[in-house]
Amino acid sequence: MSEAKKVVLAYSGGLDTSVILKWLQDTYQCEVVTFTADLGQGEELEPARAKALKFGIKPENIFIDDLREEFVRDFVFPMFRCNTVYEGEYLLGTSIARPLIAKRLIDIARQTGAEAISHGATGKGNDQVRFELGAYALMPGIKVIAPWREWDLLSREKLLAYAEQHGIPVEMKHKAGGAPYSMDANLLHISFEGRHLEDPKNEAEESMWRWTVSPEAAPDAPEYVDLEFERGDVVAVNGVRLAAHEVLAKLNELGGKHGVGRLDLVENRYVGMKSRGCYETPGGTILLKAHRGIESITLDREVAHLKDDLMPRYASLIYNGYWWAPERRALQVLIDHTQTNVNGWVRVKLYKGSVSVVARDSKDTLFDQTIATFDDDGGAYNQADAGGFIKLNALRMRIAENARLKRGS
Amino acid sequence: MSEAKKVVLAYSGGLDTSVILKWLQDTYQCEVVTFTADLGQGEELEPARAKALKFGIKPENIFIDDLREEFVRDFVFPMFRCNTVYEGEYLLGTSIARPLIAKRLIDIARQTGAEAISHGATGKGNDQVRFELGAYALMPGIKVIAPWREWDLLSREKLLAYAEQHGIPVEMKHKAGGAPYSMDANLLHISFEGRHLEDPKNEAEESMWRWTVSPEAAPDAPEYVDLEFERGDVVAVNGVRLAAHEVLAKLNELGGKHGVGRLDLVENRYVGMKSRGCYETPGGTILLKAHRGIESITLDREVAHLKDDLMPRYASLIYNGYWWAPERRALQVLIDHTQTNVNGWVRVKLYKGSVSVVARDSKDTLFDQTIATFDDDGGAYNQADAGGFIKLNALRMRIAENARLKRGS
Amino acid sequence: MSEAKKVVLAYSGGLDTSVILKWLQDTYQCEVVTFTADLGQGEELEPARAKALKFGIKPENIFIDDLREEFVRDFVFPMFRCNTVYEGEYLLGTSIARPLIAKRLIDIARQTGAEAISHGATGKGNDQVRFELGAYALMPGIKVIAPWREWDLLSREKLLAYAEQHGIPVEMKHKAGGAPYSMDANLLHISFEGRHLEDPKNEAEESMWRWTVSPEAAPDAPEYVDLEFERGDVVAVNGVRLAAHEVLAKLNELGGKHGVGRLDLVENRYVGMKSRGCYETPGGTILLKAHRGIESITLDREVAHLKDDLMPRYASLIYNGYWWAPERRALQVLIDHTQTNVNGWVRVKLYKGSVSVVARDSKDTLFDQTIATFDDDGGAYNQADAGGFIKLNALRMRIAENARLKRGS
Amino acid sequence: MSEAKKVVLAYSGGLDTSVILKWLQDTYQCEVVTFTADLGQGEELEPARAKALKFGIKPENIFIDDLREEFVRDFVFPMFRCNTVYEGEYLLGTSIARPLIAKRLIDIARQTGAEAISHGATGKGNDQVRFELGAYALMPGIKVIAPWREWDLLSREKLLAYAEQHGIPVEMKHKAGGAPYSMDANLLHISFEGRHLEDPKNEAEESMWRWTVSPEAAPDAPEYVDLEFERGDVVAVNGVRLAAHEVLAKLNELGGKHGVGRLDLVENRYVGMKSRGCYETPGGTILLKAHRGIESITLDREVAHLKDDLMPRYASLIYNGYWWAPERRALQVLIDHTQTNVNGWVRVKLYKGSVSVVARDSKDTLFDQTIATFDDDGGAYNQADAGGFIKLNALRMRIAENARLKRGS
Repeated sequence: MSEAKKVVLAYSGGLDTSVILKWLQDTYQCEVVTFTADLGQGEELEPARAKALKFGIKPENIFIDDLREEFVRDFVFPMFRCNTVYEGEYLLGTSIARPLIAKRLIDIARQTGAEAISHGATGKGNDQVRFELGAYALMPGIKVIAPWREWDLLSREKLLAYAEQHGIPVEMKHKAGGAPYSMDANLLHISFEGRHLEDPKNEAEESMWRWTVSPEAAPDAPEYVDLEFERGDVVAVNGVRLAAHEVLAKLNELGGKHGVGRLDLVENRYVGMKSRGCYETPGGTILLKAHRGIESITLDREVAHLKDDLMPRYASLIYNGYWWAPERRALQVLIDHTQTNVNGWVRVKLYKGSVSVVARDSKDTLFDQTIATFDDDGGAYNQADAGGFIKLNALRMRIAENARLKRGS
Repeated sequence: MSEAKKVVLAYSGGLDTSVILKWLQDTYQCEVVTFTADLGQGEELEPARAKALKFGIKPENIFIDDLREEFVRDFVFPMFRCNTVYEGEYLLGTSIARPLIAKRLIDIARQTGAEAISHGATGKGNDQVRFELGAYALMPGIKVIAPWREWDLLSREKLLAYAEQHGIPVEMKHKAGGAPYSMDANLLHISFEGRHLEDPKNEAEESMWRWTVSPEAAPDAPEYVDLEFERGDVVAVNGVRLAAHEVLAKLNELGGKHGVGRLDLVENRYVGMKSRGCYETPGGTILLKAHRGIESITLDREVAHLKDDLMPRYASLIYNGYWWAPERRALQVLIDHTQTNVNGWVRVKLYKGSVSVVARDSKDTLFDQTIATFDDDGGAYNQADAGGFIKLNALRMRIAENARLKRGS
Repeated sequence: MSEAKKVVLAYSGGLDTSVILKWLQDTYQCEVVTFTADLGQGEELEPARAKALKFGIKPENIFIDDLREEFVRDFVFPMFRCNTVYEGEYLLGTSIARPLIAKRLIDIARQTGAEAISHGATGKGNDQVRFELGAYALMPGIKVIAPWREWDLLSREKLLAYAEQHGIPVEMKHKAGGAPYSMDANLLHISFEGRHLEDPKNEAEESMWRWTVSPEAAPDAPEYVDLEFERGDVVAVNGVRLAAHEVLAKLNELGGKHGVGRLDLVENRYVGMKSRGCYETPGGTILLKAHRGIESITLDREVAHLKDDLMPRYASLIYNGYWWAPERRALQVLIDHTQTNVNGWVRVKLYKGSVSVVARDSKDTLFDQTIATFDDDGGAYNQADAGGFIKLNALRMRIAENARLKRGS
Repeated sequence: MSEAKKVVLAYSGGLDTSVILKWLQDTYQCEVVTFTADLGQGEELEPARAKALKFGIKPENIFIDDLREEFVRDFVFPMFRCNTVYEGEYLLGTSIARPLIAKRLIDIARQTGAEAISHGATGKGNDQVRFELGAYALMPGIKVIAPWREWDLLSREKLLAYAEQHGIPVEMKHKAGGAPYSMDANLLHISFEGRHLEDPKNEAEESMWRWTVSPEAAPDAPEYVDLEFERGDVVAVNGVRLAAHEVLAKLNELGGKHGVGRLDLVENRYVGMKSRGCYETPGGTILLKAHRGIESITLDREVAHLKDDLMPRYASLIYNGYWWAPERRALQVLIDHTQTNVNGWVRVKLYKGSVSVVARDSKDTLFDQTIATFDDDGGAYNQADAGGFIKLNALRMRIAENARLKRGS
């Protein structure tokens, strides 16, 4: 156990991090600085301040930040420029918030002179990795206290007992009894793990979902939404110019209303195990589709393919916690460079759980109707060129087959 | 113009290939062998025989083959083993049928002693490339006659005039007047191009779609379907064991009923232009989701990521017509090898245009509940290990940041 | 045959391009603008002017440019920042010069109002592709006249007869009789193709090589050379600061003296055939080794691996003529970004055909001796961390093997 | 500290593993099984037996295996089929031996009923990872005792004191005083780390090298060697058919004589630090060059490029210790598949430190002289095809530039 006189704790105000707060005070005899962020998770933050004060945290050691705009502008949007999806499905809603939290923890550690940070992520998950890789990258000498890897409160029962013993209120219980889902929420998504999801052959219960209505309960009429892009980011929804975080909030509202963005999957964690998670990402699901739509007419084929080839690697970097690593930054430079002409608008249709692109246009379009047409193109394209194109592309295969025939094998 | 005494023509019986048949006879003074395939496009093939006979084709020169099982078993299923999608969206329904047609054209050329093959693909599209790369790879000395690149019937008007002049019946007209959509169908999909789709900012008209009801018209109750996989392929639907082509037909029926699998996109053709296409792939859309679902519990993480990294390249190979190329075969060997343990079942939910995986299980599962659990795992996983894991993964970044701080830059 | 009133010809002054000059005048009745570049090939350029004048080219239509600095600074050095090698061996000496020539041809076409460019590359090679892809990318409406694909002078005999008939001097003959090697030279390399090299089982004759002494004839004492790097480029040799093209000239001199940089290989051309080539790249061979050397201490591991993964693709782009394509530019942005800290010096040893890195250092080094040491490191690195690192990296394999054992397969 | 009654130790007979042997007996009170392998490191193995007996190891617990053929046939040769090089330079001599040792440790653990294995690799290096990942993959329940991560003998002084105290002979001292180099040897290479190599700006001392003469001391006449390949592996040297390990031994002899295969580099370890190493890989250096040579005429271009694209990943897997991981196996299946036609011979020239391919031929050659020739090819290749090939490859760039011009940006 390393020593630390002052520790910055990522503090949600919930049960787990309240227990950690107390445990840090008792175990390390240290001054605790709490950091609570508004990432759009949809919870009041002031109760966290009140609780912190109750634990004796000094007012100047309580940090409550509205990070919504920074989160979407500098993390979510850059990630969507690459049509980023982990393992073909997961939109990385939790992963992308962690590097911002890590950065703020370090900022606050610098500001308050703390030598350590602490967080409530367990030793089995990805979040510990994301928090700590970020922290170490930004401040290599920082100490990290990860209570779940140190203490002996490894079962829920022990945790609850500790809470009771120290007068920490236990509010979150699942209505059907037992532990609640393990959840994480921010402007991009809300996630669910645990309970009966732990068996991948169990269907998620309808009552679990929070941000989206069920497709069955969604309106019977589809809704069309127009998104305007500049350099790969959405800057306006239905003609109304919005800040980045407002864009995402608006799309969440629209997607949620139409049951868009539910996902149920088994993913591979960086720490080596498979894990089942359910996600609601209404706005992100719309964003992904629409971004592919605007790229389809504004991006060069080979640039698009280059991005597609690099995407899984970029997604893994974010999933695994390497946002602040130099290889992620290098990829970002390439990705951002490709978005210069990704301007224009896309119309999507939302209906009972699905989102489809139905139209798109751009002043920077590379779609050339005079060439693509089935009608006479007036010589814009010489069909005879295709003969030579095919012949030379086939040459190596013809030589090989001829060689095979010659040697009779 | 090369000479050819006997030519195998990929003959659908439709207007275009009927004109080509006549044009070949007149221009090359050659004997024409017609080849018509049942790939599950849902059209009668016997009318093609009747038409061929009317053009004076000898009965022994008329080949009509039911290729449905070979198509799905040896082309569609192998492709889906890689979760193959071109440019993030397109399920390659047309692309995957072309290599089989190329193979049969060459088989028949060998059997009948023909020196040439011919097809009705235009000089602007991908299909000419796919047919011809396949043909050249399989029989390097074959001659290819691509009328669209040779003749002067480049507008629809000229083509219709030629047909009229030679007594070729013109049946296909779009009900709203003008040229019909350019369509292609087989068991995997039906595609639409042309007409007002040529402008990507026009929404597709509802009346265009053929295989799927609109999500709005789909049943108000969701339907659950159980798919059973063996070595990466679906072998049973709802407990009923089926041949490969029956699987796909069944999934098309189910997907079509629930409005699943419509797609509207702009894609990048191999010949260098962007093109707008609409696709209905009901069964394939279900298959893709379900295959990812079964892989999520049976495939090792790094193997899955390797496949994800290679997928766009593999998809491009198929899209571009390189099915018979050695690099596609090499990738297939790897892909097939990875499917050994991809066994088990997946439950999908179909509802008003969307398909979701809701449950999955396998005797070969790599999901280990005792490790993944949020409850006490009895020591199956040592949380303290994560500390070292993170520390070493962070080491290079800490060294770099320390170096930067030391030199004060 | 397209029409053109004014044509810019890439004119070396040699036999082939002199025949082309005359042929263009006769066949197209056009005004010819000649462009001759000094890329460091080591030939006098003024004779090209004299010859052009003799063909009646107007003085203002004769362009003779010293492009050596631009060539090395903007093409060679950027390429070496990626340790670029085609097919594991070829340093792309010819490939990297072509985009610059294409650019100048288009510049001059713009300046002189020419509608076409012309070059002396054959229809079998890569250079036609490189010239023309570059030209089309920079000026999409440009006409290209490629005489080797148009005329009937396809054998050397016909070419010589044409030259004789039109009074074009034929100087280049191989001393042993027959056609000379097909050669290309610039500051980066000199290449040889043709003659008995056309059979890959023939060893190259010693008399062929021009820039390097044979290793056998090289000095008996090794020579050490110190190279200083800034942002990935060499800026000084043995302590003397030099312009980019001087760096390469100096390294050519040093490498040539010690027999460094000969290469004999069979490569795969973009047009589909294999071709045998011999290359002398003395300076480039040193540069490649030294650049890897300086990167080995200044580049982050994952950034280095990302570059290694992308390198073959980047090399193919250059080899195939896509320098001016957007995907090459996107990759370059990433590559250049990675070179920010690639500063320092490398010491290489040249001796009888080989070049070895023997020492390197940098103020930006990421090599941390206190951690890497075999001696006691005073706690800089906690060896126990490795246990957890290994355990978690092994977890997925352990789970899989346990699952296999459990099901007894 | 975990308990273990019987432990299999990878025992070289040298100082470090002798100390470990004693330490295991004392610390764990366990029965030790020693495993000593002949991998061609060129040391007598019987002294290891004698030493083991002196430590009281039962004769039936002493395993001494000649693994040379298995090592080269099943590990080295498969790796060379991919032209495998880590970070552009390192031939993976140490890395490739570790998985075989891991496999034998586990075999012996099974045979003797041991619950644990132990090895002498330090906690800073890659070898611990390679041993342990292999062991865990092959036997997930195995215990691993890594003394360097457990004990307090972390400095050389403490180790020597312990040895003295327990009567363990200390033979290896560096002649110039101080600790010897940290070395590892097998049929593929010998490596050197430590001492003054720890500073990358120090040149290696000539006296360090063991297997190769200095290029300066190599014969003044070059030597030609003919290698015959079957399915990618060398099966004969200079016409003499040899077993796999004899091939490598012969090439080591030839290379060593001519000073071929010295390498001095800084590499990135998996555990996160940079490390300086010097390597002698005489036979492997020849093998790599020759294998590229035979592939250059027998491998399809796109297959070769696919392999080149995958190589760095495959190399990292081996370097990082993932030989027994499913993703390495999947890649191997692809690699091996590509070698079917990699048959023929290659002639290399060895001279004063360098190895060059000078000729190659194969009955399976894809080099087609009639097409590649500069002479008239009698129509084997239609140069006019190249026009269409270029035009279509340029199309997307022309459309983009036209679009840019049109919008005046």
